[in-house]
Amino acid sequence: MLEELAQEGALQELVEQYFRSSFTTENPIITQAVKRMLAAGGKRLRPRLTLLAVQACGGDPTRHLHLAAYMELIHVATLIHDDVVDRAATRRGVNATAIDFGNRTSVLAGDYLFAWIFKNVTANYAAPIPQVLSTTLAEICDGEVLQLHALGELDTTLAQYVAIAKRKTASLFAAAAECGARVANAATQEIGALRTFGECYGVAFQMLDDLLDVTAESAVLGKPAGNDLAEKKMTIPLILALARADVPFRTSVAGYFSGDETSLGPILEAIERQGGVAATRREITHWIEDAKRALQPLPEGAAKKRLSGLADALLE
Amino acid sequence: MLEELAQEGALQELVEQYFRSSFTTENPIITQAVKRMLAAGGKRLRPRLTLLAVQACGGDPTRHLHLAAYMELIHVATLIHDDVVDRAATRRGVNATAIDFGNRTSVLAGDYLFAWIFKNVTANYAAPIPQVLSTTLAEICDGEVLQLHALGELDTTLAQYVAIAKRKTASLFAAAAECGARVANAATQEIGALRTFGECYGVAFQMLDDLLDVTAESAVLGKPAGNDLAEKKMTIPLILALARADVPFRTSVAGYFSGDETSLGPILEAIERQGGVAATRREITHWIEDAKRALQPLPEGAAKKRLSGLADALLE
Repeated sequence: MLEELAQEGALQELVEQYFRSSFTTENPIITQAVKRMLAAGGKRLRPRLTLLAVQACGGDPTRHLHLAAYMELIHVATLIHDDVVDRAATRRGVNATAIDFGNRTSVLAGDYLFAWIFKNVTANYAAPIPQVLSTTLAEICDGEVLQLHALGELDTTLAQYVAIAKRKTASLFAAAAECGARVANAATQEIGALRTFGECYGVAFQMLDDLLDVTAESAVLGKPAGNDLAEKKMTIPLILALARADVPFRTSVAGYFSGDETSLGPILEAIERQGGVAATRREITHWIEDAKRALQPLPEGAAKKRLSGLADALLE
Repeated sequence: MLEELAQEGALQELVEQYFRSSFTTENPIITQAVKRMLAAGGKRLRPRLTLLAVQACGGDPTRHLHLAAYMELIHVATLIHDDVVDRAATRRGVNATAIDFGNRTSVLAGDYLFAWIFKNVTANYAAPIPQVLSTTLAEICDGEVLQLHALGELDTTLAQYVAIAKRKTASLFAAAAECGARVANAATQEIGALRTFGECYGVAFQMLDDLLDVTAESAVLGKPAGNDLAEKKMTIPLILALARADVPFRTSVAGYFSGDETSLGPILEAIERQGGVAATRREITHWIEDAKRALQPLPEGAAKKRLSGLADALLE
């Protein structure tokens, strides 16, 4: 296992090298904006899924480092566009790209990066890889628009939440795993298995992200706790707490969403007290189990174990 | 000629029918934002170039209505993103999409539309059409970033201006014409001829757009005259006027760019007086001539005449 971890680390390092050294575009300002975003860190989970999927299907991951890198770059492009703020700045967090480069440059840098990725993908990968990735980008945007229109909607259901999370977050994890399987010429069943793994993993990942916003210290998050709540996002701990809650809790959340900013602390505490945190953990466990079960059709081996381990690591 | 004009009108009407009736996406909010943009009008020049290019190369334009429509949709997506404003609203014009839907939705709607187009193009058109279009989108963004960084740069040269115009505007006209030729299975020389036509037409088109900002009445433009100047854009009439200008003119432009808003009217008059308007007309004429000359390798016929006529119509 140690050797395999070392091997995975070495592959990851090759992806990082590509980001640091080879990655460049024809526009220096855009290259700079993207590199800064990449240098800010991140766990590179999407490229890891791609490389492990290649390996799990018997392919050679060193031959698909660029494809793995594109998964991270799609994520980076969506982050750059996430940073675009409305005239009446609705985000309270740090909006790195938009603040330092302005909204206009942020929009253009994200667009350019999408175009650059598609140019390279269509030039180097056969059907259906380009379709998978363009469909994924459409799903991400679709999910984000749905989320935008669900802001502050106290009646959002768990099913609606999952539908949004599948689009805005899980679709890219699903595509990362699927594309890895495809370039390794995997059988249809294996491709489906890895796509399902990626989707379940992605849903669990989004739920965990929501949970940390409620439970973690600001220093750990790199952004203020309760940031999602401040943006009126209907996160899963809030949805599950509301489903169990007494009337006063619902009233105080509605009050907070209407502008009573003093109540953030008590609401975070109440989400825990109403059982929202524990119920969210149970949901995450359920999606992690589904992710691992999806791996069944794949041959036993180091890559399958690592994928399973990545899923388990979400709740550790 | 009347019959051919009627035929072109009928083709255009089929494209409009597609926009009005068939065009839809999976996200109703995005569909609405895009349809509103399409309903606002436009001369649909990009689809026209595609259909005329198909015809000029002996193809059947009725088989490529969707490809023609995608050219307009790429343009619409860039317009939706153009509407995104910075926190300190730098645009004075009407920012329809961003004002009614917000910056966040505008960014997502544009992204979704790009993804939707690429999904359809990769599914339905063979190489190199998808590459041509993704390269074009990268060029448009590259040009817009370059333009953004040239704002207020009084020393911008004509060559720099043309380099920006080729990317941000002409590349899509070039791609529209090139793709039309390609789907008609045209010879390499014809493809090159139509691409060059599109590029020269596009540069002339951008120059004319700049000229109208200086010379036209606000009512004709649908936006205030001097709007480009208010955004500190280095338009061609301004560049050519500065090249001929006396020191006081340069000083007054610098003053206006530094915030002295009273001087817009006198500056617009001075651009004309310094010869900026006449010199721009000469430049446009030159690019129109180049566009028409590029058509030489194409067989004589109605489509070639119409393309030539479209170029002439720019200055009529």
